[in-house]
Amino acid sequence: MTSIAREAGVSVPTVSRVLNHRSDVAPDTRERVEELLRRHGYRRRASRAQEPAGLIDLVFNDLDSPWAVEIIRGVEEEGHAACVGTVVSAIHRRPTATRQWLRNLQARSTDGVILVTSDVQSPLHAELRRLGLPAVVIDPAGLPGQDVPTVGAANWAGALAATEHLISLGHRRIGFIAGPSTLVCSRTRLDGYRAALEAAMLGVDPELIMPGDFYHESGFKGAEQLLGLRRPPTAIFASSDQMAFGVYEAVRQRGLRVPDDVSVIGFDDLPEVRWSSPPLTTVRQPLSEMGALAARTVLRLAGGERIESMRFELPTQLVVRDSSGPVRG
Amino acid sequence: MTSIAREAGVSVPTVSRVLNHRSDVAPDTRERVEELLRRHGYRRRASRAQEPAGLIDLVFNDLDSPWAVEIIRGVEEEGHAACVGTVVSAIHRRPTATRQWLRNLQARSTDGVILVTSDVQSPLHAELRRLGLPAVVIDPAGLPGQDVPTVGAANWAGALAATEHLISLGHRRIGFIAGPSTLVCSRTRLDGYRAALEAAMLGVDPELIMPGDFYHESGFKGAEQLLGLRRPPTAIFASSDQMAFGVYEAVRQRGLRVPDDVSVIGFDDLPEVRWSSPPLTTVRQPLSEMGALAARTVLRLAGGERIESMRFELPTQLVVRDSSGPVRG
Repeated sequence: MTSIAREAGVSVPTVSRVLNHRSDVAPDTRERVEELLRRHGYRRRASRAQEPAGLIDLVFNDLDSPWAVEIIRGVEEEGHAACVGTVVSAIHRRPTATRQWLRNLQARSTDGVILVTSDVQSPLHAELRRLGLPAVVIDPAGLPGQDVPTVGAANWAGALAATEHLISLGHRRIGFIAGPSTLVCSRTRLDGYRAALEAAMLGVDPELIMPGDFYHESGFKGAEQLLGLRRPPTAIFASSDQMAFGVYEAVRQRGLRVPDDVSVIGFDDLPEVRWSSPPLTTVRQPLSEMGALAARTVLRLAGGERIESMRFELPTQLVVRDSSGPVRG
Repeated sequence: MTSIAREAGVSVPTVSRVLNHRSDVAPDTRERVEELLRRHGYRRRASRAQEPAGLIDLVFNDLDSPWAVEIIRGVEEEGHAACVGTVVSAIHRRPTATRQWLRNLQARSTDGVILVTSDVQSPLHAELRRLGLPAVVIDPAGLPGQDVPTVGAANWAGALAATEHLISLGHRRIGFIAGPSTLVCSRTRLDGYRAALEAAMLGVDPELIMPGDFYHESGFKGAEQLLGLRRPPTAIFASSDQMAFGVYEAVRQRGLRVPDDVSVIGFDDLPEVRWSSPPLTTVRQPLSEMGALAARTVLRLAGGERIESMRFELPTQLVVRDSSGPVRG
């Protein structure tokens, strides 16, 4: 380490910080040190001296959506294959719950942490780094830097495909119900919707874009407003399945029908959407694969491996079912 | 221990088995030994000498239903309050997966195990006893003996209330779609349905009772058959919410409407059912409370506490929404 520090022109603690995947190293310094480590055939040991705990932690803000079970399944399957247990927690965005979770963590130890829709700027991340614990974020809030690997879906391409599908069915006024503006995935979906409209020279009418939070109620409210417009949309693209069902209910309460009067598209493709009446056209994001990839990544980091990318994006796919149809003539 | 063994007229290993909550002790022997232990002020230590692991294990057959997330939430909240992490696993009813899970368990240790819809007669339970690990079963398969505490809902009363509700709306031909016949909760729901019909002197028509497995497809198929009968039912009680949505789809595909043509009732009250169109009338079972109670019970056992009952049953409640209406005149 001393010779590498000398050769790189940095201090020994800096080399150690690079070895421990710490973020407080300038990117070019990190690169230089990593390069020297490779050249000297240095094999990085697991970042912590302890025995592996045989556990990874999967942390949600809330366990309140069927969405969560998809992520859990993916992480659990990957963990199972690696003989590692999956500890599931909810921290409810509350600092007290977060602090207690951290205390429990130190008592029982873990090999790494997967955070779902976590704000990568939050103090929690600094704390995990201090503990030397590798972390991966699924669907981050806030723009992720280069120090926390993130896993997401191709949200932009998915939203583009959904909007193009509606345009191809003849729809010209297409409403959009957004997700929480803090989440990268929400903003990217809105961008994909906009891009499709612009590519079709349709222009983006701001009165057709409603705020939402991915939950049912906001889909219902957004649809209520959209359907109450002087010139209501003939199709509504809700950027989560749960919100799409809120749209269904708003359509039903107005005595209208899906897709005869209003086409509806969701985003997620939760297993339940196949059971909706009519079955929902939606953008499939591979939630359990995202969970599995996050688990694989955090285990690789725990094993001291270097990962090839800090941003993983898995493909999305438009799944056309019965809730989208041609615009009424 | 020697003096208690002498006084009870049993061997020292038998006293030890009672202390360790082992099942291979005759009930009256257990009672006698427990009584002497109490009288002598013996404070039972945690059954294992090791440090608490700070973990409980929650084991599903499959993580494939939004139902699972409700149970997880309850267990996680209770565990969080007790500073204990919740390890979630799926064993897919496969012996290999089960064996590997047991191996992982021994590597990392746990304070107790909650099994969901587990067969209480399976070798897994014997193995957990051998390891000295307390276990609790949510919605057991097979009739539970007195050696494994079980947690369930008041399935009989819930099914009775749902069927009575349909009868009060004037329905006389009420279809029923059952759950897996191995699960106690399924059989009890069928019994509640039968009891309501018999109390109303309606008689039980076996052609109105369809087999099912709690999943969507079986609800769809059961409803297809029921609606195809020469004298179809005017109401269908599906014994899970997922199957109720299968019924919705069968009704829709026949060009009929819920509840105008067919009333539908489910069982579970998953959060998603509020989002269905029309919102589903269903029997609420307190899944997250069941999870919390199971966690509390397994932690009490882990702490060497005696529990007051081996069968816990939490109340169910009929939640009337828009899918059940008066029979058409």
